[in-house]
Amino acid sequence: MTADRVNPEPPERAAVAALADDFLTSLRDWITIPSISTDPAHHGDVARSAHWLADALRADGWPEVAVWDHGPALPAVYACWPAEDPAAPTVLVYGHHDVQPVDPPEAWEHPPFAGVVVGEELFGRGSSDDKGQVAMQLLGVRAHLAATGAPAPAVTLKFFVEGEEESGSPHLADLLDRHTADLACDLVVFTDTPLYARDAPTVNTGQRGVLGAEVTFTGGTSDVHSGRVGGGVPNPATALARLVAALHDDDGRVRLPGFYADVVEPTAAERADHAALPFDEADWLAANAGGAQAVAGEKGWSTLERVWVRPTAEVNGISGGYTGPGLKTVVPREASVKLSFRLVPDQEPAAIAESLREFVAAHTPHGVTAAVVLRGEGTPPYAIDVDHPAAVAVRDAVEGAFEQPVRYSRTGGSGPAAVLHATLGVPVVYLGATLPDDRIHAPNERVVLPLLLRGAEAAARLWRSLPERLS
Amino acid sequence: MTADRVNPEPPERAAVAALADDFLTSLRDWITIPSISTDPAHHGDVARSAHWLADALRADGWPEVAVWDHGPALPAVYACWPAEDPAAPTVLVYGHHDVQPVDPPEAWEHPPFAGVVVGEELFGRGSSDDKGQVAMQLLGVRAHLAATGAPAPAVTLKFFVEGEEESGSPHLADLLDRHTADLACDLVVFTDTPLYARDAPTVNTGQRGVLGAEVTFTGGTSDVHSGRVGGGVPNPATALARLVAALHDDDGRVRLPGFYADVVEPTAAERADHAALPFDEADWLAANAGGAQAVAGEKGWSTLERVWVRPTAEVNGISGGYTGPGLKTVVPREASVKLSFRLVPDQEPAAIAESLREFVAAHTPHGVTAAVVLRGEGTPPYAIDVDHPAAVAVRDAVEGAFEQPVRYSRTGGSGPAAVLHATLGVPVVYLGATLPDDRIHAPNERVVLPLLLRGAEAAARLWRSLPERLS
Repeated sequence: MTADRVNPEPPERAAVAALADDFLTSLRDWITIPSISTDPAHHGDVARSAHWLADALRADGWPEVAVWDHGPALPAVYACWPAEDPAAPTVLVYGHHDVQPVDPPEAWEHPPFAGVVVGEELFGRGSSDDKGQVAMQLLGVRAHLAATGAPAPAVTLKFFVEGEEESGSPHLADLLDRHTADLACDLVVFTDTPLYARDAPTVNTGQRGVLGAEVTFTGGTSDVHSGRVGGGVPNPATALARLVAALHDDDGRVRLPGFYADVVEPTAAERADHAALPFDEADWLAANAGGAQAVAGEKGWSTLERVWVRPTAEVNGISGGYTGPGLKTVVPREASVKLSFRLVPDQEPAAIAESLREFVAAHTPHGVTAAVVLRGEGTPPYAIDVDHPAAVAVRDAVEGAFEQPVRYSRTGGSGPAAVLHATLGVPVVYLGATLPDDRIHAPNERVVLPLLLRGAEAAARLWRSLPERLS
Repeated sequence: MTADRVNPEPPERAAVAALADDFLTSLRDWITIPSISTDPAHHGDVARSAHWLADALRADGWPEVAVWDHGPALPAVYACWPAEDPAAPTVLVYGHHDVQPVDPPEAWEHPPFAGVVVGEELFGRGSSDDKGQVAMQLLGVRAHLAATGAPAPAVTLKFFVEGEEESGSPHLADLLDRHTADLACDLVVFTDTPLYARDAPTVNTGQRGVLGAEVTFTGGTSDVHSGRVGGGVPNPATALARLVAALHDDDGRVRLPGFYADVVEPTAAERADHAALPFDEADWLAANAGGAQAVAGEKGWSTLERVWVRPTAEVNGISGGYTGPGLKTVVPREASVKLSFRLVPDQEPAAIAESLREFVAAHTPHGVTAAVVLRGEGTPPYAIDVDHPAAVAVRDAVEGAFEQPVRYSRTGGSGPAAVLHATLGVPVVYLGATLPDDRIHAPNERVVLPLLLRGAEAAARLWRSLPERLS
């Protein structure tokens, strides 16, 4: 598919190889900073991490580097390296430098902030999510410049590396608003998603959105004795169970009115790509599903499709009445359920919220009062058209770097890609080289170093190819 | 209906009136003992309360009085006063001398263990449940003897006053087994139920049984991220909600297989009695239902029937997944529901438990594991045939004492009556003179003193009439 098939040693690969030792030393150093954004005790470390990154960018020769540290957002890092050709496209690379907590620390085989290397693997919090991938992008730019011999990249490159992604990016929209001019671009490269598998590299094409809500049914002002009134008054917990049961039909489809009206189904080509990926149900369950014993879900779709391209309604938590040890025979005064809906293009969180309110109203029995509390405005879904020239360019770059066929995949979770797309008004493509079993958010996070080097090569190839692809 | 209609001052009434001051002094003294059986710190007070009662019985002239204090049961009091006629029937009066906790103490307008009298009301924990009614029975015996002038009661009377009723009578069966000969009788008079209302005195004819169970659905070994797997694995909380929703049909009937097979419907006469009782829905809700806004339940039955003579399935508590503040997008690893089934004659707890297990098995989806844990063996339901001579005798005695029409009622809750019936092999009738709004188990428990005096008179009348009624 690319010329590299007949050229086993393209200049980007050689450049990456030459910089690999330096890259590893640098990444190991960055990992020693415990930039845990969810823990206020580590907010100083988040700032240290931002300055570490800014210093690294400056050392690489980036002409414009800034730490955005003007609260309430934790420090983000911005850098810009203009192309020599003022007509060249501008690409914004998004990543984050904050990391997850390490609980429980005793579950780590290697210290989480030491950057221990064992064979091909580098262990440590953030090694994969997302310091490893941001470092990969820095390496990609260095390799690009080394491969072309030019003093500046072929596209105007901007890096935007936030410090609150693991806290849910609460100030991302504020940052985007405040720095509209800085962040203006023609394309976002989102670098916080994994490959499908080591033997099945993929290019991610989208993420599901999410809308969270809590529904509370209230019957009375206090729990009452079920002997005294049981059978004679509404039971809010029973009513809530009936509401939740009504959320899905027997085929696993969500029954909110109009829920599927705006759903864009994947193209035949995408479905073929997804179907061609290696998939072993038992392996998938073991790797992903926290000990779940079987797959389940919407009839007519594969497991990968169910978690990538189909919308869902899930109970995240349910509670009501007496939940302590033993028995207490009460009719609960109220019961609540936390729900989240994963959304796919072109579902809109606001429309789904409205549909949920209608659905709850229609399923609230006489004598019960319902309250629906939304958890924020939700995150919209996002997917790029797989025929978009930028998507094809990424796929070609990854295929060249990994020297094997590459397919499209998606991500079931939600992230800031849709916010970047909506705010900046440009397409978002994904470039990542980590693995789903890197144990991000868990003890013993690691990254596979040769994959990061391939990813850096892919990035370098992408920067070289983009001016022509986007012209 | 009785001769008293033309004799406004029967000897029992005069006798009660003469003993009323002494009765009140004595009951106020008993109330000062905080005999809270659920609190180990008060177990010494439970013993003090037992000895207080034993002393009171001895002072009244009872020839045989014992405190059964041989563990693990908290002390119970037993007393026997044989009739002169060895052929006279033997009646066992059941009550309890332990009381509920007082939490929250600051909600009491009068100290809970001071026996404060305001007008016709005596305030204090146990004033109604059940020291007031036990004291009423002591007064009834004294009035009976005073009215007849005989040295012994017309029936052989036995009192059995346990000290663990508020703890669920955990050793009642043991006590009954251990004291089979002492407790042998022809009839039990159960004195721990209220009248329907002050202006609508009733004789209780039965209590519902209860079976408690907890059902847990497990999907995996840990909660998993709903973005990663949502839509692709079973959600135990959703599955549990579907199980609970399936418990009732749209008419509010319980869908456990065979649930209604053994249900004995009330007679036309009982239904007519229940329908004739004054019932205001708003008043009933305000007095009973903890602020519930409406009645609900099985189609085709009145509210009183729903809580008295119809069996139920109630959710007492439900929990699963994340239940803290805000949102956490997980697919829960498991979810649990605490259920209780109120049972009516002739439903058997063991059969209902078996039916529940079948029902759960039939509603457990692939990939989910179900566990059903029963909370003990359950309490069977009990009701006396309303045409039984003892039931008619009680109704006539109450009607005479209260000087107004008396109807039959039932109790929605569960209690030891069925255990007494099953173990002793004799019918159980109910004689109580408290009110549903006495705030038993709540702050500011009180009893209406003139009603207790009427109840004592009814008891005295009953003891006089029983030899003929049961002959």
